[in-house]
Amino acid sequence: MKYEKLDPAAIDTMLAERRGWELGRDGAAISRSFRFRDFSEAFAFMTRCALLAEKIDHHPEWFNVYNRVDIILSTHAVSGLSALDFKMAEAIDRLLPAD
Amino acid sequence: MKYEKLDPAAIDTMLAERRGWELGRDGAAISRSFRFRDFSEAFAFMTRCALLAEKIDHHPEWFNVYNRVDIILSTHAVSGLSALDFKMAEAIDRLLPAD
Repeated sequence: MKYEKLDPAAIDTMLAERRGWELGRDGAAISRSFRFRDFSEAFAFMTRCALLAEKIDHHPEWFNVYNRVDIILSTHAVSGLSALDFKMAEAIDRLLPAD
Repeated sequence: MKYEKLDPAAIDTMLAERRGWELGRDGAAISRSFRFRDFSEAFAFMTRCALLAEKIDHHPEWFNVYNRVDIILSTHAVSGLSALDFKMAEAIDRLLPAD
């Protein structure tokens, strides 16, 4: 996996496929907020995200309070977004039940 | 465990015994920032905190990025701090290696 910085056009294309994710930090990060039934369900989701993060060696910035989990993805090495952020976002989305 | 709101004098007394914790939100919360060797160690700590939280039914607001974990404790039911926050802080501190 290369850590090349994505240009705005590439970001727009990849973001269009990631429903629920929003661009932030002047285009340097993507974020999504998730809600669960309770803390137990939220933390179970976080645990699965943590395993993903270790597996692809790309770690989120995230905040949790009770049933809410806010995730921010960015690639520090390029001071912006790389394909790795969208790979991680896609893997996180796959943890959710189909809607 | 009662959810009575602590007065400022009681908070001062309990905070004096919790080295590393700081008062915030105009006295309505306490917080502490923790650093670990890496994400794996940080998330292992978070997992133990999550088990504590479920056990005493008192959940943190927390933020993590890589090896850093910031924890905020407050008791929403009293719009401030209760003994439960300090009980949780003490239990969290007990997870750390003795220094």
